[in-house]
Amino acid sequence: MAESSTLAARVQETLTSFLDAEAEKLREIGPDVEPLIEEARSFLSGGKRLRAQFLAAAYQATLFDPMPGELPQHLVEAAAALELFHAAALIHDDVIDHSDTRRGRPAVHRRFETLHKEQSWRSHPEDFGIASAILIGDLLQSWADQLFNQALAALPSAHAERARNFFNRMRSEVAVGQYLDVLEEQQGALMPEAEQLERATRVLVYKSAKYSVESPLLIGTALGGGSAQQEEVVRDYGLPVGVAFQLRDDLLGVFGDAEVTGKPAGDDLREGKRTVLVGLTRQHLPTSARHVFDELLGDPSLTAEQIDMMQRTILDSGAVDAVESMIAGNVERAREALDRLTADPSHAAVLRALAERATQRNA
Amino acid sequence: MAESSTLAARVQETLTSFLDAEAEKLREIGPDVEPLIEEARSFLSGGKRLRAQFLAAAYQATLFDPMPGELPQHLVEAAAALELFHAAALIHDDVIDHSDTRRGRPAVHRRFETLHKEQSWRSHPEDFGIASAILIGDLLQSWADQLFNQALAALPSAHAERARNFFNRMRSEVAVGQYLDVLEEQQGALMPEAEQLERATRVLVYKSAKYSVESPLLIGTALGGGSAQQEEVVRDYGLPVGVAFQLRDDLLGVFGDAEVTGKPAGDDLREGKRTVLVGLTRQHLPTSARHVFDELLGDPSLTAEQIDMMQRTILDSGAVDAVESMIAGNVERAREALDRLTADPSHAAVLRALAERATQRNA
Repeated sequence: MAESSTLAARVQETLTSFLDAEAEKLREIGPDVEPLIEEARSFLSGGKRLRAQFLAAAYQATLFDPMPGELPQHLVEAAAALELFHAAALIHDDVIDHSDTRRGRPAVHRRFETLHKEQSWRSHPEDFGIASAILIGDLLQSWADQLFNQALAALPSAHAERARNFFNRMRSEVAVGQYLDVLEEQQGALMPEAEQLERATRVLVYKSAKYSVESPLLIGTALGGGSAQQEEVVRDYGLPVGVAFQLRDDLLGVFGDAEVTGKPAGDDLREGKRTVLVGLTRQHLPTSARHVFDELLGDPSLTAEQIDMMQRTILDSGAVDAVESMIAGNVERAREALDRLTADPSHAAVLRALAERATQRNA
Repeated sequence: MAESSTLAARVQETLTSFLDAEAEKLREIGPDVEPLIEEARSFLSGGKRLRAQFLAAAYQATLFDPMPGELPQHLVEAAAALELFHAAALIHDDVIDHSDTRRGRPAVHRRFETLHKEQSWRSHPEDFGIASAILIGDLLQSWADQLFNQALAALPSAHAERARNFFNRMRSEVAVGQYLDVLEEQQGALMPEAEQLERATRVLVYKSAKYSVESPLLIGTALGGGSAQQEEVVRDYGLPVGVAFQLRDDLLGVFGDAEVTGKPAGDDLREGKRTVLVGLTRQHLPTSARHVFDELLGDPSLTAEQIDMMQRTILDSGAVDAVESMIAGNVERAREALDRLTADPSHAAVLRALAERATQRNA
């Protein structure tokens, strides 16, 4: 897919020059801000850029526009702003989840904890790490807005306002979705069985499906001046892709190869994530086996053997097959919506390929 | 000051109806989001509304406009957006500083920690409190943008863009200022004496003086379509008021009456804040006394007697007198700038009263 790698390269260039310009302003404050800038830079040099791709594809399908390589610069800026916001969300999420690694390197709060130790500063390295990560997340949120507003300046004001509404909606929904996610980890086990699966699905929809796929698509559609009807069809394609995207993530969180995902194997089990995969597993386990499973779930000190045992339990319960068939079903629903979304075969091909990339990945 | 209480009431009304509308949207997600909404609502029902007052006063001085009671609604919205953002910043700041109280009630992270305990959920109440506070802060940041953008929609686009630039600049500066503040607490004692005072001043300027006073004034000026020259004069008035505002805060953080400030007495000493007041004290202490002082500074378990002793040390060092005269000098500089800022005596009176309110308060 030459087009999408071109877009990823342009998003990267845009982020780099945006960060250069902001770094220049911050340097007036003094050399102490250097670690903030360096961290933002290195954090933003990775990632799948899926949100940017969805935004661009929706924009082009809406407009019957040329291929991604020729996307106008302000569209690339809007896409880059999504990636900036996503970085902020991940950095806060890693603090909340006590995650040690992200994208194959230490999480931001861990990197600043290490900086503290290296410099032999007083007080608590861990607190310094958390404080720094909260503030870098806040900084990136403000930068995301700034870049997004810059992108909108080139657009008709009605399109800009619609896009901004979707952008803001995305931000409040993901904060609330993350809160529900945290809540599930705390109170999940105390809920009746049937309700648990419903609640896990709700977290999946708000924290991930809407955030990672539907919202970028809707923003792209708004940027292209899409009609209410086009938005409707975009949702019909986007929500099932988003659901399948997160179901794949749930599988990778338990079975993913650490070398490829950049996260330790079985990380979701140590964190006690109440995913749909976990909900389905628990539904199919006999009571005694479920008690053992619940005891282990969310224990941060799980050994490799225990992870291995839990993986087998999940596999044997049939939950993996069930999730795989949910993924396939959602991708199929998305494909059906595609015909209504665009009549142009090249746009349809891009969106189809994106749906596959989002849901069949191994990282 | 009838005008300012009218403005405060209109800001409160605007916040209440904004939160009502957002709450309505979030309720679709389910009853679990109720605590988030309630917390946002009660947190936003307090505060001095100083930022809103500065914004409104600068707008009116720029435009030679009527008095605050008749401020157009979109200006009240912009002022309310600043208060929303400020709430977000305070909530994150309290997590970072491990503060237990804010505005006379438990800090947000403590309230959610208590919710967790009351509900007997599993896992760690403290972690749940921190996670919730990070996410509520993120939510309020996105709402602040949303409300600010809503306010800008009614304005000529050049004014709107200028105001948005100041708003974004304010957000990145305060995040960086807070980082520098945290850094000082960690590495402060390791720096040479002279440098410490300079560094404390830098934190004061970025974390507080610009954020609390200069930026709201500049945003108000931009909303009124002020010229570059007007912005310059606004800075000449705003920065010294901001500096004096924070110096007063430093005094209150050590000597304030807990009943009035809503924060425990001597809180800054327990937190080990490296303020200008502390820097001046240390500069005037003999080496042995300074070692004793440094040992105590930042110890979260300081007793009332130890706080009392440190307060006397600070007083006896002459640092309090020095800070009071810095405050007076800055207020004087601001008054001089006033003549250039506005020729209208009623606007000048509002700005003079605001400078006094910001720098002579007891909470």
